[in-house]
Amino acid sequence: MSVPPLHAGNIWHDRGWRPASQAPGIVDGRFARSTAADTPGRFIVPGMPNLHSHAFQRAMAGLAEQRGPGDDSFWTWRETMYAFAAALEPDDVRVIATQLYIEMLKAGYTHVCEFHYLHHAPNGARYANPAAMSLALIEAAKDAGIGLTLLPVLYMTGGFDGRPLGERQRRFHHDVGQYVALLEQLKPLENPMLNIGIALHSLRAVPPEAMRAVLATSVARDMPVHIHIAEQIGEVQDCLAIRGTTPVAWLLDNAQVDERWTLVHATHLTGHETQRLAKSGAVAGLCPTTEANLGDGLFPLADYLDAGGCLGIGSDSHISVSPVEELRWLEYGQRLATRHRNISARKAGDSVGATLWQASLAGGARASGLALGAITDGARADLLVLDDASPLLVAREGTDVMDSFLFAGNTPLVRDVMVAGQWRVRDFSHPREAESAADYRRVVERLASL
Amino acid sequence: MSVPPLHAGNIWHDRGWRPASQAPGIVDGRFARSTAADTPGRFIVPGMPNLHSHAFQRAMAGLAEQRGPGDDSFWTWRETMYAFAAALEPDDVRVIATQLYIEMLKAGYTHVCEFHYLHHAPNGARYANPAAMSLALIEAAKDAGIGLTLLPVLYMTGGFDGRPLGERQRRFHHDVGQYVALLEQLKPLENPMLNIGIALHSLRAVPPEAMRAVLATSVARDMPVHIHIAEQIGEVQDCLAIRGTTPVAWLLDNAQVDERWTLVHATHLTGHETQRLAKSGAVAGLCPTTEANLGDGLFPLADYLDAGGCLGIGSDSHISVSPVEELRWLEYGQRLATRHRNISARKAGDSVGATLWQASLAGGARASGLALGAITDGARADLLVLDDASPLLVAREGTDVMDSFLFAGNTPLVRDVMVAGQWRVRDFSHPREAESAADYRRVVERLASL
Repeated sequence: MSVPPLHAGNIWHDRGWRPASQAPGIVDGRFARSTAADTPGRFIVPGMPNLHSHAFQRAMAGLAEQRGPGDDSFWTWRETMYAFAAALEPDDVRVIATQLYIEMLKAGYTHVCEFHYLHHAPNGARYANPAAMSLALIEAAKDAGIGLTLLPVLYMTGGFDGRPLGERQRRFHHDVGQYVALLEQLKPLENPMLNIGIALHSLRAVPPEAMRAVLATSVARDMPVHIHIAEQIGEVQDCLAIRGTTPVAWLLDNAQVDERWTLVHATHLTGHETQRLAKSGAVAGLCPTTEANLGDGLFPLADYLDAGGCLGIGSDSHISVSPVEELRWLEYGQRLATRHRNISARKAGDSVGATLWQASLAGGARASGLALGAITDGARADLLVLDDASPLLVAREGTDVMDSFLFAGNTPLVRDVMVAGQWRVRDFSHPREAESAADYRRVVERLASL
Repeated sequence: MSVPPLHAGNIWHDRGWRPASQAPGIVDGRFARSTAADTPGRFIVPGMPNLHSHAFQRAMAGLAEQRGPGDDSFWTWRETMYAFAAALEPDDVRVIATQLYIEMLKAGYTHVCEFHYLHHAPNGARYANPAAMSLALIEAAKDAGIGLTLLPVLYMTGGFDGRPLGERQRRFHHDVGQYVALLEQLKPLENPMLNIGIALHSLRAVPPEAMRAVLATSVARDMPVHIHIAEQIGEVQDCLAIRGTTPVAWLLDNAQVDERWTLVHATHLTGHETQRLAKSGAVAGLCPTTEANLGDGLFPLADYLDAGGCLGIGSDSHISVSPVEELRWLEYGQRLATRHRNISARKAGDSVGATLWQASLAGGARASGLALGAITDGARADLLVLDDASPLLVAREGTDVMDSFLFAGNTPLVRDVMVAGQWRVRDFSHPREAESAADYRRVVERLASL
C-alpha cells in the first residue's frame, strides 16, 4: 500500500531541513524514494521513540507529592507505587496504557519501549494465560496506534544479597525457565509495529547466573536488552559492598554490553565509567522528568557526549509525557549544575534543540531494536508535523525552529502525527481520545474507590 | 456592577477546598460575601500573579540556544538580548506584550509585574512623550485584560565602579530627576487593574545615593520596590570587591527592606542572608525557568521556607510562560540537588502543590502592591477554573488536585480565567487571540527581516 505524494515544506534530516523536492514517499508504512505523500505543514520532523515506560504508573501521576512522616526519597515513593499497583488487573492496565499511549502520540512519541514487570495476579498467582498482562499492553499499543517494543522484565531477588522478593513484589517474579517461556510465547507476535526484547530489572533483582542463562538462550539472540542501573546512590553502595565494584563497572565487566543494550538512568557514573559506557555503543536511557521527580540526580551529559556516547529519552513514571519537557530539562539541569549555557551543543554554531532531538532519535531507535527515528529510505514512516501557525514559530528558520520547538513556551507544537505511514493524530486530535478518556475515568474512579 | 451567583463546586482557599455554600460573590470586580457568581467547574483557584516580566524578550524565546564561540553564560546571552532589543519601537513592544499577556492569562497568570527598562528610542533619544514605552505596556495589559504593576526601571551605571552605560544600554538611562518625573507622570493613571511601582535595575546599575534619593521622594512613598539581585556569581564577586560585602547584605544594611520590597532571583545567598531576607518580610522573586535557561543556579528554598520567608514566581525572559512549569521545576531543582523528594512541603502531610501555589499567591500579591491573590472579601476577583474533564484530574480530591495540577502531565488545565470579575479566557480561548497572533506575526517577521 502506498499513500499520496509527500508535498512537505521542510523535512528535518540529521542536522538540517531538506526541501520538499527531496521528500521521500511512503510504501507499506516505510519511507521510500519512489513515491511521495501529501503532508501539509512547513516543518516535519521524525517522531520520537520513548525508550522507557512503566505504563500503569500514569494513573498515579500527582499522587506522591505529599510529604511523608520522614524524609521522602525514591524509596518512600516506591512504597506508594507498590500500594497503587496492588489492585491492577490486565484490563485496568490495558485501559490506562491506551490512554497513556494516546497522550504519548499527541506529545510526539511514535514508539514506546515498555519495561513491563507487573506480570501476575495481585496475590502473585499466574494468570491462566501467563502472558495476560503482556497481551493487554500489546492491545493498548495497537488500539492507540503507537509502535511498541515490549520488554518483559525479569525480576527475581530483592537485593544484591539475593534475598527473596517482598510480598508486594511477588507479582513481578519469574524464574529463568518461566521467563524464557514468556519470551518464546511473545516472539511470534512480532511485526513492524511490535518488537519483543529483554529487560533485566536491575543488578539487584537479577542474579549473575540468571542474567547469563537468559542471554545465552536462542530466543534472546538479537533482542534488545534493557536494564535499570545506577539510578540511586543506595544501589551503587550496595553493589560496592557485595560485589566490590559499582553496578555499571560490574555490568561492563560481566556482559557483552554493546549496541543491543540500553542502560536506563545510569545517573551515578565515575569518569571512567562514563568513557567506557560511551565507547560500548550502548544507549544511556535518560528520563529527566522522572529522575527529577524522584530526586535521583544528574547524568554526566557533557563528558558522555564528548566521548561519543549514545542517548535516548523515556517518560518512565509519566508524571510528564512530553519529549519537549524531557529534553528541555535534560539541558537545563546541566546548566543549573555548571552555571553555563548551551551544554548539549558541544561545538560553536551547534543548536541545542537540533542536537538533542537528533541524539534522542538515534538512541531511541537503537533502544527499540527497529529501523525508525529518521526520515530515510527503509525506516518506518514515523513523523510529526509542527504547528507552523503557532506564534512560537513565527520567523523561525533552520535550527532555530528546533530550538523554539524545545525551548520556547508551553503549548504543544505537535499538530499531526504519523506512525508507519498512518495518521494517528490530525490537528491535535486522536480519533479514539474521547472513548479512551471515558474508559480511563471508569477504571481510575473504581481504583480510587477501593 | 455585580455579576450572577457563584455556584462553584470547590474553591481553593489557603490550604483546602471550600464548598459552594461558602462561595463569595463579586461586586465591582472584587470578591464580596453579599452576592455570588455563576462559575461552572469543580475546582476554582485564585489566579497567579507573575512578579517578574521583561515583555519584549518574549519574541526572542528560542533564539539564544545555539552554541557561541566560547563558553556560553548569562553574559553571552545578554549580548544576544541587547542585539534583539536594538530595533524595538513602542508599537512593537505593545504588540509583543499583548501577545505575551494573552498567553499569560491562558496559562493562569492574572496579574503581571512588568520590570520595564526599554525606555527610549534605539539611538538613545527620548521619545516626544518620555513615557511612550510605558504607555505601550499599559495599553497591552488593558487590551489583554491582565492586571499590571508597571515598574519603570532606574538604570544608570554599567557596574559597581560607576562606569557609564555602554552604547546598547543607552536606551535604559534616566537620571534621578527624569526617573522621578516618569513616576509622577504615570502615578495618576493608577486604577484597580494598574499599579505603579519602582524598579532599581540592580546594585551595579544604581549608585547608593541615587537609590536613597528616589526612595526619599513623595511619589515613591508606599510604592512597591523591585530589584534584581545576586543572580550571578560575577555580580556577587564585583560587589564584594568594591563594596566589601555581598549585594544582599549591602542592601539589607543600607535600605529599609520590608514587605514593600521584592528581591528578584536572590540566587546566591549565604545562610545568614537567607535568614535575614526571610525575616525582612521582603519577597524573594524566583524565576525558575529563566534561572535554569541562563544557568544562574538554585535558590536555598528549604532554609528560606523554614525561616518563614515569602516568595513568588515570575516568567522573566518568557522562554516559558506557565506557573505550572515555574513551580514544578522550582521543586524539582531542589530534589535534584538534595536527592530527596517533596522539599517545599516542610511538614508531614503537606502537599507540595498546595504549598507552592499558596506561597506564590501570597508573595506575588505582596510584590504587586495590590489586594489580590486570594478568594476573600475585598480582594480583586481573579480566579481560574480548572478543567475537571481532564484525565489528569480523574478521581483527584483535596490537595491531590493541586499536586496533579502542578506535577502531572503537560496539557494545560486552566480552562477559564477571570480578572477583576471579568471573564478573560473561556474554554481555553481568549477573544483577542487570533487578532493578537496576526499582529504579532507582522511585527516579528518585520524584525527578523531587518
